[in-house]
Amino acid sequence: MVRAAADRPGLVGAVGDFLGRRGANITTLDQYSTAGEFGVFFQRTEFELPGLVDSIDELASDFEHEVAGPLDLTFRVVEAARRKRTAIMVSRYDHCLMDLLWRARRGELDIDVSMVISNHPDLEESVAQFGVPFEHIPVPRGGKAAAELSQLSLLAEKVDLVVLARYMQIISADFLEQLRCPVINIHHSFLPAFVGADPYRRAKERGVKLVGATAHYVTADLDEGPIIDQDVVRVSHRDDTTELARRGADVERLVLSRAVALHAADRVARLGNSTIVF
Amino acid sequence: MVRAAADRPGLVGAVGDFLGRRGANITTLDQYSTAGEFGVFFQRTEFELPGLVDSIDELASDFEHEVAGPLDLTFRVVEAARRKRTAIMVSRYDHCLMDLLWRARRGELDIDVSMVISNHPDLEESVAQFGVPFEHIPVPRGGKAAAELSQLSLLAEKVDLVVLARYMQIISADFLEQLRCPVINIHHSFLPAFVGADPYRRAKERGVKLVGATAHYVTADLDEGPIIDQDVVRVSHRDDTTELARRGADVERLVLSRAVALHAADRVARLGNSTIVF
Amino acid sequence: MVRAAADRPGLVGAVGDFLGRRGANITTLDQYSTAGEFGVFFQRTEFELPGLVDSIDELASDFEHEVAGPLDLTFRVVEAARRKRTAIMVSRYDHCLMDLLWRARRGELDIDVSMVISNHPDLEESVAQFGVPFEHIPVPRGGKAAAELSQLSLLAEKVDLVVLARYMQIISADFLEQLRCPVINIHHSFLPAFVGADPYRRAKERGVKLVGATAHYVTADLDEGPIIDQDVVRVSHRDDTTELARRGADVERLVLSRAVALHAADRVARLGNSTIVF
Amino acid sequence: MVRAAADRPGLVGAVGDFLGRRGANITTLDQYSTAGEFGVFFQRTEFELPGLVDSIDELASDFEHEVAGPLDLTFRVVEAARRKRTAIMVSRYDHCLMDLLWRARRGELDIDVSMVISNHPDLEESVAQFGVPFEHIPVPRGGKAAAELSQLSLLAEKVDLVVLARYMQIISADFLEQLRCPVINIHHSFLPAFVGADPYRRAKERGVKLVGATAHYVTADLDEGPIIDQDVVRVSHRDDTTELARRGADVERLVLSRAVALHAADRVARLGNSTIVF
Repeated sequence: MVRAAADRPGLVGAVGDFLGRRGANITTLDQYSTAGEFGVFFQRTEFELPGLVDSIDELASDFEHEVAGPLDLTFRVVEAARRKRTAIMVSRYDHCLMDLLWRARRGELDIDVSMVISNHPDLEESVAQFGVPFEHIPVPRGGKAAAELSQLSLLAEKVDLVVLARYMQIISADFLEQLRCPVINIHHSFLPAFVGADPYRRAKERGVKLVGATAHYVTADLDEGPIIDQDVVRVSHRDDTTELARRGADVERLVLSRAVALHAADRVARLGNSTIVF
Repeated sequence: MVRAAADRPGLVGAVGDFLGRRGANITTLDQYSTAGEFGVFFQRTEFELPGLVDSIDELASDFEHEVAGPLDLTFRVVEAARRKRTAIMVSRYDHCLMDLLWRARRGELDIDVSMVISNHPDLEESVAQFGVPFEHIPVPRGGKAAAELSQLSLLAEKVDLVVLARYMQIISADFLEQLRCPVINIHHSFLPAFVGADPYRRAKERGVKLVGATAHYVTADLDEGPIIDQDVVRVSHRDDTTELARRGADVERLVLSRAVALHAADRVARLGNSTIVF
Repeated sequence: MVRAAADRPGLVGAVGDFLGRRGANITTLDQYSTAGEFGVFFQRTEFELPGLVDSIDELASDFEHEVAGPLDLTFRVVEAARRKRTAIMVSRYDHCLMDLLWRARRGELDIDVSMVISNHPDLEESVAQFGVPFEHIPVPRGGKAAAELSQLSLLAEKVDLVVLARYMQIISADFLEQLRCPVINIHHSFLPAFVGADPYRRAKERGVKLVGATAHYVTADLDEGPIIDQDVVRVSHRDDTTELARRGADVERLVLSRAVALHAADRVARLGNSTIVF
Repeated sequence: MVRAAADRPGLVGAVGDFLGRRGANITTLDQYSTAGEFGVFFQRTEFELPGLVDSIDELASDFEHEVAGPLDLTFRVVEAARRKRTAIMVSRYDHCLMDLLWRARRGELDIDVSMVISNHPDLEESVAQFGVPFEHIPVPRGGKAAAELSQLSLLAEKVDLVVLARYMQIISADFLEQLRCPVINIHHSFLPAFVGADPYRRAKERGVKLVGATAHYVTADLDEGPIIDQDVVRVSHRDDTTELARRGADVERLVLSRAVALHAADRVARLGNSTIVF
C-alpha cells in the first residue's frame, strides 16, 4: 500500500517500474486519488516475487531509497501469506463470535485467532470447541482500569488486530494508545443513525423500515471511527424490538466478517475519518 | 380500515360476519395487533359487493350501528375504484416528479394528478408533456405566508393527497392544518441519519458505505413524521458528493413512488409516529 | 390453516365466528385467494384460547362438523408451542448444518433437532458440540437402497420434517413416499437457472453477475419442487468458481434457515408446484 | 484499454512508464488477470494529458511501436470527452426507453442519442419531447430482411452503439455483421433462467420468489451473449404475471441504464462469452 500526500504524474509508473526491474509480477493493482490539485493518492499492488519472504526488508529499504523517498510517499509492504494474529473481545452475544471462528476455521479469513477475551464466562465452551484459548477478564464496577491492564498484558505486541464482536464495554483512549494495533468494532445500527446505546429499541420507536449494522475502526470518539462496511435488512411494523435485534444479528455478523476479511487482506486504507476499500 | 383502541376476542369475526350477511366477498384481509393487554387492533379488508357504489353511505352507517359503535371501533370505508386526486409540489429536481407522472400515466398508481405546483418555473415544459396543469407560485424571501395562501386556494378541499417530490421549502404547521389532507415527503437520507439539510454532503464526510431515502408523512416536526418506506443503495469512496446525490436520486424516486402507491391503495395506517403498512 | 377448493362469500366470517363463539382471540390472520371464479382460498389464523392443549382434538372435530364440512374446506389445527421434530441430512459441507444447529440452539427456529444423518463421518465432532445425535450411514456405490432403508428406520414416524442441508445424494421417490413427512432441500443456484450438478462452475462459465440459492420442498422431480425462498448475492469477474461457491454458501445458509423457520411456523402452504408464504 | 494474450511481469510498469514519460497523469487504473500460466491480462487506464485531443493518433502509434508491439498487446485509446453516438431500438413498452432518454438529458450517460427506431408508431410523441428523431420502420410478416436494410441505412457507420430497449424482434446474424458496432439488449429475466419468450409468465408458473433482468451484448446466439449486468427484485405469491412484469420493469430499466453507462464509459471488456467490468 502506497500513499502520497499529493497526486502527480508518474506515480503509478514509478512503482510499476521498480517492481518490474526486480522481476515481480503485478497480479492486482488498485489506485485511487482524491480530487483536486492537492489530492491524496493511494495505490495497492499485489505482486508475486519468488524468494520475497527472505528479502522483504531489503525490498522495502530499496523502495524507500529509490521511490518513496524521492517522491515523498509513505508505504507498507506485507507478506500476503502471513496471517494476522487476532484477538476477539466479546460479552454475551455469540453470533458475531461464532461467525468469525467458523469462517477462520474454514479458511475464509486471513487471520489466526490467538484468543478470545470476555468480561463474562458464558461463551467459554462455545470457544473451546474451536480450540481457541478463552480468557475471562471480568470488568466489575470501578474495575475497568485494572481489567484493561490485564487485557493489555495479553494483547500488546502479541496480536496484529483486535475485533470487538459485540463487546459491550467502552474502550478507553488509553487502552487504544497502549494497544498499538487496529481495533475493529461492530455497531448494531446503521451509523450515524442511532449512535449510542439501545439502537434497536430506538429504531422501533422511530418506526424505521430497515435496520442495519456498521463495522468501523475504533477511535477515541465512540461510534465515530472510520466506517469499513455497512449493510441493512428490511423490517416491518410486525417486528418488535426483539425481532429487530434478531434480524439485525444476521446483518451484524455478516458486516463484521466482511470488514475483518477486508482488513486482513490489507484492502482498507484510512483517509481522515473515512476509508478507502480496495 | 378498522381500528380498535383495545384488542379483544371476536373483532375479526364481527367484521367478517357483518360483511358476510350482506353478501360481500372478502378478497383480502390483513390484520395486526400491537402486543399487550391494551394492544391496538388494526384490520384492513378488501371486499367485493355488487352495487356498493350507490350504497356505500348506507353500509357505513349500518356498520357504525351494528359493529363499530358497540365494539368501540373507528373505521373508514373507501371505494377502491375512486382514485385519489393528487397535487405534486416540486422545486427544481425532476427525478421524483417524472417518475410519479410516468407511473400515473402508466396506470401503476391509483391517483389522478390534478396539478403540479412549483416555486420555480423550470419544470413547466416537462409537466406539460403529461397534460397536467403546472402552477408556478414563487416563494420570495419573506413571502412564504402569501405563497402558502395561494397554494391553499388551489389545494384545500380540491385534492385528497399532496406529494412533496423534492420541494425544497419548509411547510408551515399552519399550512398543514388548513390543508386537511395527508402530505407525503421524500427525504434524501436514511432517516434518522442526516436529518436536515445537505444529507449527501454529510454522508460523504462521514464516510458511509450506503446512502438512502425516506418517504414519510409530513407533520409539524420537520423530518420527524411517520415513515412509510425507506431504501438504500451501496456507495464507495470513489463516489463524490455529486455521485452520491445521483445514486441517491434513483432510490428517492423509487421509495417515493412506492410510498404513494401504498397510500393511494389505502394500505397505510398511522399509529403514533409510526406506520402499519399492509 | 384452512383451504377451500372455491372462494366464496362468507368464509372469513365463518371461521372468525366459530372461533369467536369459543372465546378465542385471533392474533394474526392472513388470507389469500387465487384469482378467478374457481379461485382457491387459503386462510391462516393464529389465535389464543386458554386450555386449547387439552381440547385441540375436540376443537378440530367441532370445526369439521360446523364449518369445514358444510363449506367443503380442508384444514389443519396445530399447537404453535409444539416444536417440529427435525432431522438434518448432510454430506461434507458444514455451513448450512452449522447455521441450523446454531439457530435452533438460540431459539430462532420452532424445531427440535432430533438427529443429523450423514453419508460421511466428517462432521461428527461439529454436531456433537450441540448435543445432537450423529448417525453415519454410508451410501456406497450400489448401496443406496440399503442406506435408504437404514435412514427410514431412523426417520419414519419419528420426525415431522427432514432438512437436506447440502446432502449430495439423490433421494428416491420410494424414500419420499415411505417417509411421509415434508423434506426441504437447499439447491445452490437460483432455480431454474443451473438446474442439476455443479451450478457455480456453470455460473462462472456463463459469466453471471449474481449467484443465488433456492430452498424448496423435495418432490419426485429433482430440483422441480415448490420453491419456499430464494436469494442472490452480487459477484464479479474477479470471483473464480471457488469464490462463487464461498459467496454462495452465505446465501445458501440464510435461505435454508429462513425456509425452515417459515415451515416450522406453519407459514407455508403448497398450491400445485408453488407455495403461498404467509 | 489494454489486453495481453498472456500475463507476464512488467506489463503494468511498461504502460505506466510510457505514459509517465509523456507527462500524462494516471487518474484511475484497473487491472485484472485471469488465473493460470496462460492467463489473459486486462488493464484500463484513465489519464489526463494536456493537448491529447490533437495528438491521440500519434500517441496510439507510439504506444503500438514502443509497448504494444514488443509486448504483444492489443489496445484501444479513446477520448473520454467524446460521447458515443447511440441509437435506441424499441417496440411498445416505454419504460427502458424513457429512462435512457431521461438519464441522457440529465447528463448521467456518456451518450448522444442520435435516433430512436421502432417497429411501432406508438412512442413517437414520447420521444419527440426529448428532441430526438423517431424513425418508424414496421416489420411486417415476411418483411424482416427489408426492414433490417432500412435500419442499416440509418445506423451503419453513423452510430457507435445500438441499444435494444425492449425491442421485441429477433435480430439476424447478418444485421449484426453489417452493423459493426456493439448492440446491448435487455432481457426480462435473470438469465439463464427463462431464456426465450414470456419469462414472467413462466416465472409465475415456476413459483419463483425473485424476478430479474439481464443486460447483455447481442451475439448471433439469442440470449447467450456476454452479460454486462443483472439484478433481481423480490416477489411473492400475491403477484400475478402482470404484477411480476410491472415489478420487473423497474429492474429492467435500472439494469439497462447501468449497462449503457458502463459501456459508454469504456468500462466493459469482453473475454469469451463473459465480461470484465471495471
